[in-house]
Amino acid sequence: MRLRHKPWAQDLLNQHPEYVVQNAEQYKGNWQERFGNHHPIYIEVGSGKGRFITEMAKTYPDINFIAIELQTSVIVSILEIQLDIHLPNLQILHTNGSHLNQYFDQADISRIYLNFSDPWPKKKHTKRRLTSPAFLEQYQAIITANGEIHFKTDNQGLFEYSLASMSQYGMILKEVWLDLHQSDFEGNIETEYEMKFAEKGHRIYRLEAYFPNN
Amino acid sequence: MRLRHKPWAQDLLNQHPEYVVQNAEQYKGNWQERFGNHHPIYIEVGSGKGRFITEMAKTYPDINFIAIELQTSVIVSILEIQLDIHLPNLQILHTNGSHLNQYFDQADISRIYLNFSDPWPKKKHTKRRLTSPAFLEQYQAIITANGEIHFKTDNQGLFEYSLASMSQYGMILKEVWLDLHQSDFEGNIETEYEMKFAEKGHRIYRLEAYFPNN
Repeated sequence: MRLRHKPWAQDLLNQHPEYVVQNAEQYKGNWQERFGNHHPIYIEVGSGKGRFITEMAKTYPDINFIAIELQTSVIVSILEIQLDIHLPNLQILHTNGSHLNQYFDQADISRIYLNFSDPWPKKKHTKRRLTSPAFLEQYQAIITANGEIHFKTDNQGLFEYSLASMSQYGMILKEVWLDLHQSDFEGNIETEYEMKFAEKGHRIYRLEAYFPNN
Repeated sequence: MRLRHKPWAQDLLNQHPEYVVQNAEQYKGNWQERFGNHHPIYIEVGSGKGRFITEMAKTYPDINFIAIELQTSVIVSILEIQLDIHLPNLQILHTNGSHLNQYFDQADISRIYLNFSDPWPKKKHTKRRLTSPAFLEQYQAIITANGEIHFKTDNQGLFEYSLASMSQYGMILKEVWLDLHQSDFEGNIETEYEMKFAEKGHRIYRLEAYFPNN
């Protein structure tokens, strides 16, 4: 997405430690303290401007959600939504997906969402794809037994890569959708990106997968 | 496909035991005797009129091919092609895919092709799909270590089902194509059905998968 420089963004993030987690390492293995309950925790890696995760958090109040996003000028949009709606079950984590095991312990997380991740189409950038083995290893290190990864994209190449990558890593595909918006899937919450590209006629691909040995 | 009644078909099949295998059980574990060499054997389950497997057999003379098809009025077309071209590396087996282990021993077969199999879209017919667990079990019982299944279809529902079914059975997806004819895949040999439906603009899906524990 196009990044607009927002010089004030980091200040605003700093001003709201109640929503933007500081020193996330301290909650490793202990996130229930942060949320004040023992509900399952779902994270989204790469939350963008946050439409998906804020709608999810509104729709499922008995689930705790953590939005993870690296771009300061983007993650601030999630905070701005949260400052409007003040959801008790939504926290924001300003980082990327490559060191999740610094912040989460085995089985801290019950589900991981990956939505419209950067496709990194060049072969030399394969390792940056959020479904490449090093990232899957991070997810496996923090997810519960039977915890699922739910992945959506409009990028055909990334989806093809991800099906094979997850399978070769040892994950099991629970279900696959090759044209989500023409399917009978119910309760789909669209991301900003998804709304825009589905309108242009792009197919949306989706899968649910899990680690059988967790 | 539309079946035309050909009352003479069974007679023609009977007249050519050199190409149409009779009493296939006798070759179980011993197909090299039938072919007169030790080349790897690839089978196609549901060969239709045989364009794919006859072109493959022409292209790869050092591989032995067996076309498997149940419909008498369809399989006879394969024989008619073979009576024109007399390929030494092509045999025809008049049966379906549900009892392959009667005719083939463990590791008799190095690769299995499934092309444009009947999608059986109704849920109650799931078990008839050639990628449902009982069929995968048959394939696993006859294929070599690292032997691959190569599957093509234009049917989105069948492809979605097959990705999940193979994964849940324990197979590994080696590679997936979500729009084969727009990809850089080289050496694709089209079936009759594929030529017709690709021309109508249908997407062709393809996958290669294997059993990791064979």
